[in-house]
Order: sequence, then structure tokens, then C-alpha cells
Amino acid sequence: MIYFITSNRHKYEEIKKAIDFEIEMLTISYPEIQAESLEEVAKYGIEYLIDKVNGDFFIEDSGLFIKALNGFPGVYSSYVFKTIGNEGILKLMEKVEDREAEFQSVIAFYDGDINIFKGICKGKISKEIKGNRGFGYDPIFIPEGSDKTFGEMEREEKNKFSHRGKAVKKFADYIKMREFY
Amino acid sequence: MIYFITSNRHKYEEIKKAIDFEIEMLTISYPEIQAESLEEVAKYGIEYLIDKVNGDFFIEDSGLFIKALNGFPGVYSSYVFKTIGNEGILKLMEKVEDREAEFQSVIAFYDGDINIFKGICKGKISKEIKGNRGFGYDPIFIPEGSDKTFGEMEREEKNKFSHRGKAVKKFADYIKMREFY
Repeated sequence: MIYFITSNRHKYEEIKKAIDFEIEMLTISYPEIQAESLEEVAKYGIEYLIDKVNGDFFIEDSGLFIKALNGFPGVYSSYVFKTIGNEGILKLMEKVEDREAEFQSVIAFYDGDINIFKGICKGKISKEIKGNRGFGYDPIFIPEGSDKTFGEMEREEKNKFSHRGKAVKKFADYIKMREFY
Repeated sequence: MIYFITSNRHKYEEIKKAIDFEIEMLTISYPEIQAESLEEVAKYGIEYLIDKVNGDFFIEDSGLFIKALNGFPGVYSSYVFKTIGNEGILKLMEKVEDREAEFQSVIAFYDGDINIFKGICKGKISKEIKGNRGFGYDPIFIPEGSDKTFGEMEREEKNKFSHRGKAVKKFADYIKMREFY
């Protein structure tokens, strides 16, 4: 059995649907450190969890990185969303021409070693809040190859672009390969 | 000997000047977790350091908490400053009437137990960047009882109001009391 350590049932359901091996949700809280990259945060979390979980396990963390804001809100995306929200991000981006941004998702999987799988979705920050689907920054993020925000897309359409979908795909490929050997 | 675990020589000098017992600067990096309060961040840091430092030691962490932004940038003040800076904060505060804010400083001291000393400086966010003294958010913070920003004050004047000064005072009182018993 592979455990997904999270308290976010939404993420659990999303990932469970995208893979063809069994996982189980397990809620153990672990420290998320202040760092520059999602990889550092995830590695620290895994090391904390190693002797607390009996079996293989993984964690997932994601964030929105805006180029003109030097990567803000980055690894603090969830805290920033709770405090200043999408309105705050749009205010910071007023009169900013370079609207380039990317969503990143990192899955860290422990099976005796730490394996990192990263998915990136490039795109830009919209000028206004659009759509009410998804969650978090979805209504202000327009992925490359579309003119709609994630907030305006059905889940299936969003999954074609999604950073989390890409990380999950790499993870699933690894599991498949591992079973082969 | 009491060790101050920090990599910030500026803070070390500032605190050293404000106390009448001996401290020594020691640079060991420790994880800063993502949390709601400075106290949680400091406690986690102390627990990490306990078996790495031979003797009594303390750490200091501070942050700016803006009421209208739900406490943002809070425990992430240093990261937020590096990414969006004072310009970013002023942009977020455009057309915001309630400009109430406070600086907080937490000193966590370990001498067999964890002791927390907290200093708060209440004030408000200015409408523009003023002054070039101090560092960080000093040029946009006006403490209660003044009409100047910290950025416009000499160090001595700033220290009368300072959150860090207040935390250091509580810490020094504790050391004095401890020596008495």
C-alpha cells in the first residue's frame, strides 16, 4: 500500500482518479519549512515523516510563481491566498505588463529513497477574476494554449494542462517501471 | 555563555548593545516552518537546535502584521520583502482606509526550558515610502506616538518604540531574575 499524507481530501480525490494503482489517504501533520523551492519544502517533510509512516508514502505541494513578482507567492501560495487572495494578486499586478506565471506541483515519494516528480504549467495572470470553478488561484490563471482561466474550465479540460496532472503522470510512470524490475 | 543563533550580524549588534550580559553570535542554520505565529516558528527552531548547541541559547524572529491584509506579510515578512518589497505592500494598501499594523518580535530562549519573550510595536502603514534609515519595512511603518516612519528616525529614537527593544527588555529582566535565585 502507498500512503498519501495529506489533510486535503480534494487533492486526494484528484490524484486517486488520475492513477491506476491503489493509494490510501493518511492524515499526519508535518512541518512545511520556509524555503525558496517546493522541492526543499517537500524533502524536509519527507525526512520528518520517514520514521512515522509504516510503508511507502508521498506528499504533494504546489504553488503559483509570478515572474514580475520575483516568484511571489511561490511556496507560500496557500498562506498568501488566505490573507490577500486573488484581489491582492491582481492589485500587485496592476499596470504590470509582463504577466508570465507558472503553476508548479511537486510530489515527493519515499520508498527507501526520496523521489521527486515535478509538473509545471506555464501561463499568465489574467486582468480580472474569471470563472468560479476550481479553487485558489484558478480564476486568475490562464494556461498557455488557452484563453480561459482555470476557473472557467471543466475539470477534464483543466487536467489537460494541469501541473498536478503532469507530476502525477511522472509518479505513475515511476511506479510502473518499479513494478517491472 | 549565552549563544545567539543567527546569521544576521545587524540583529546581533542591535541586541548586544541593548543588554548588559555577555552573548556570543553563533551561526547554525535551522528550519523556519510555515505557521500562523512567530511563536510557533521560534519554538520549532529551538527544538531543532536543542541537541546541536552546547549551552544556553536564543533565537529572534520578527514580522510586520497588517490588519486590513489579515496579518499579511506576518511570519513571511522577510520573503515578502525580498519579492514584492515596500512598493508591493503600498500597492496592496492603495485605497485601504484602515492602515493599522504592528511589528512583532519574538525571542525564544532555551535554558532547559523554552522561554518566549514577545515585543509588539503598534502603528500604521504610511501612504508613501519615507526615509532611508533602518531596513526592511521601516520606511513604510509609522509607530504610534510619532508622525515619522522608522525609516526617518535615528536608531536611538527608533529604539524607544521598537518591538525588538521590548522583547529584549523582557529577556534581560528574565536573565536578571534568574541570576538572583
